[in-house]
Amino acid sequence: MTTSLPLAPELHVQTWFNTDHPLLLGGLRNRVVVLVAFQVLCPKSVAHGIPQALRIFETFAPDDVTVLGLHTTFEHHDAFNPSMLKAFIQEYRLKFPIGLDQPNPASPIPYTMDRYKMRGTPSLILIDKRGLIRKHSFGAVDDLRIGAEVGALTQESPARAQSSAA
Amino acid sequence: MTTSLPLAPELHVQTWFNTDHPLLLGGLRNRVVVLVAFQVLCPKSVAHGIPQALRIFETFAPDDVTVLGLHTTFEHHDAFNPSMLKAFIQEYRLKFPIGLDQPNPASPIPYTMDRYKMRGTPSLILIDKRGLIRKHSFGAVDDLRIGAEVGALTQESPARAQSSAA
Amino acid sequence: MTTSLPLAPELHVQTWFNTDHPLLLGGLRNRVVVLVAFQVLCPKSVAHGIPQALRIFETFAPDDVTVLGLHTTFEHHDAFNPSMLKAFIQEYRLKFPIGLDQPNPASPIPYTMDRYKMRGTPSLILIDKRGLIRKHSFGAVDDLRIGAEVGALTQESPARAQSSAA
Amino acid sequence: MTTSLPLAPELHVQTWFNTDHPLLLGGLRNRVVVLVAFQVLCPKSVAHGIPQALRIFETFAPDDVTVLGLHTTFEHHDAFNPSMLKAFIQEYRLKFPIGLDQPNPASPIPYTMDRYKMRGTPSLILIDKRGLIRKHSFGAVDDLRIGAEVGALTQESPARAQSSAA
Repeated sequence: MTTSLPLAPELHVQTWFNTDHPLLLGGLRNRVVVLVAFQVLCPKSVAHGIPQALRIFETFAPDDVTVLGLHTTFEHHDAFNPSMLKAFIQEYRLKFPIGLDQPNPASPIPYTMDRYKMRGTPSLILIDKRGLIRKHSFGAVDDLRIGAEVGALTQESPARAQSSAA
Repeated sequence: MTTSLPLAPELHVQTWFNTDHPLLLGGLRNRVVVLVAFQVLCPKSVAHGIPQALRIFETFAPDDVTVLGLHTTFEHHDAFNPSMLKAFIQEYRLKFPIGLDQPNPASPIPYTMDRYKMRGTPSLILIDKRGLIRKHSFGAVDDLRIGAEVGALTQESPARAQSSAA
Repeated sequence: MTTSLPLAPELHVQTWFNTDHPLLLGGLRNRVVVLVAFQVLCPKSVAHGIPQALRIFETFAPDDVTVLGLHTTFEHHDAFNPSMLKAFIQEYRLKFPIGLDQPNPASPIPYTMDRYKMRGTPSLILIDKRGLIRKHSFGAVDDLRIGAEVGALTQESPARAQSSAA
Repeated sequence: MTTSLPLAPELHVQTWFNTDHPLLLGGLRNRVVVLVAFQVLCPKSVAHGIPQALRIFETFAPDDVTVLGLHTTFEHHDAFNPSMLKAFIQEYRLKFPIGLDQPNPASPIPYTMDRYKMRGTPSLILIDKRGLIRKHSFGAVDDLRIGAEVGALTQESPARAQSSAA
């Protein structure tokens, strides 16, 4: 590796929605991945994170950019159940794949949130065609800026990417 | 009664939040009551109904206008639990009293929603100082119009109101 | 007069648009008047003041509430001409009467702005059925609050108003 | 030329603001140029075009992306004067270079608007590092999409661009 950018940790998901089969980042090389972490009871996730994820999903071609939702939270565990996420996905008409972060019996922080050291929700993580983390932000992000960053990542050639990461 | 306006049915609430004691409309005569029915998994409730209820709560003097939330739904019963509503109230920093509609074991429609014949959420009901329903709307309502209607109701004198309702 | 509320100074208008005849506040007693002062080159007038004036105009019955625009400015006099206001009214599809404040050859502040001691634009002035100023605000105003205030003023009976002002 | 993309016509500007010297597209090769055509009396220009131009100006590095405003209109010629544009630029705190389109004595359509065959304002034109038009849109444009398109254009290498255009 000639790069110091971190490889995106693999997702650890309990249940997937909107996909027939479990998704792994390892299977998404050569695509830009936009990972949007959210929580159904988090106001900024609902007002900003989820609508922006939908706009990203609708703006970019699926062959170029994969949008993944990750439902994750370090609190309100007694309030949450998977049926709630299922109803949320239906009500908000979300069509992109969404994974429910794997709870950790030994910690209030589920596995994927922990691996990514997320500060909370909403978090937005951009992963390039090589699987490297290029952006990791917490809170609301500007549409124009995120559009520019995703747009720029789609232009990176996988070949160049792979050789520079080799 | 010289009026044909309907008397607001009494609330039938399972659990109250943000109040030490159960509230009855019968105890709120001489105040304008804004009853906002919502559901935590309903996008329009979260984007419009709840923020507007908060604005109404912050705009009018509590001696003039009482804002009441009512969590109610005819669907997603397996997804819901009272802890979820408690967490929602905390996350959205709602300070006005909120009642959880009493479920009906014989129907998916809880008691208060049924009595008011609500079409769904968000619903907004204006109750005048005499306890009569003056507005019953479903969906997003314009701030300017609702402000005008509540403002006009606050000007009605209880004495005049009671004599005309006698 | 038993009230200390100020009587609204009469308008001093150079040119009227959207009305066949000049308007005087003295001819609008028994109606609530919403006077919206704006300037076509003022960002807050264009983003907030004018759209809100339009919403007020569309929300209230014309027999209850008269919306009046007043174009006024203490600066950019070399940039302005009446054709510009005419084009603005056409482009923004404003239908309520709009007066162009009478310039004062001896001062950069036109006559009506001076009489009302406006701080700038946008300014919103509420005048009750008796012709008294009930609100005088500078800058953006909340829709819910202005709706409440106008709605309350419409409920004042002219008879009561006149006797209390006598 | 192996490309069929049109070369952006040169600007024909009467007066420049926010720049010490006249700008020519020919002097901006190897940069992405975002040309935003607007008119101070056009509601969509003021509500969408100009704020978006400002956001683009603030989001991208000036070495990568040059934002240019072009004031142009085919109507309201009697309402307009250069002082009005100067005041507008000051009021809206615009910092990027803005040119006033050169009027054509023989037509209501000024020269640059005519050369670009613009349908009106706001119009947004993206010009790549080679000087070729890559987008020409009329009306409001989505922030996410325009961000993606500008971001992608910034990634094109001038060398590759020049050789493919040769």
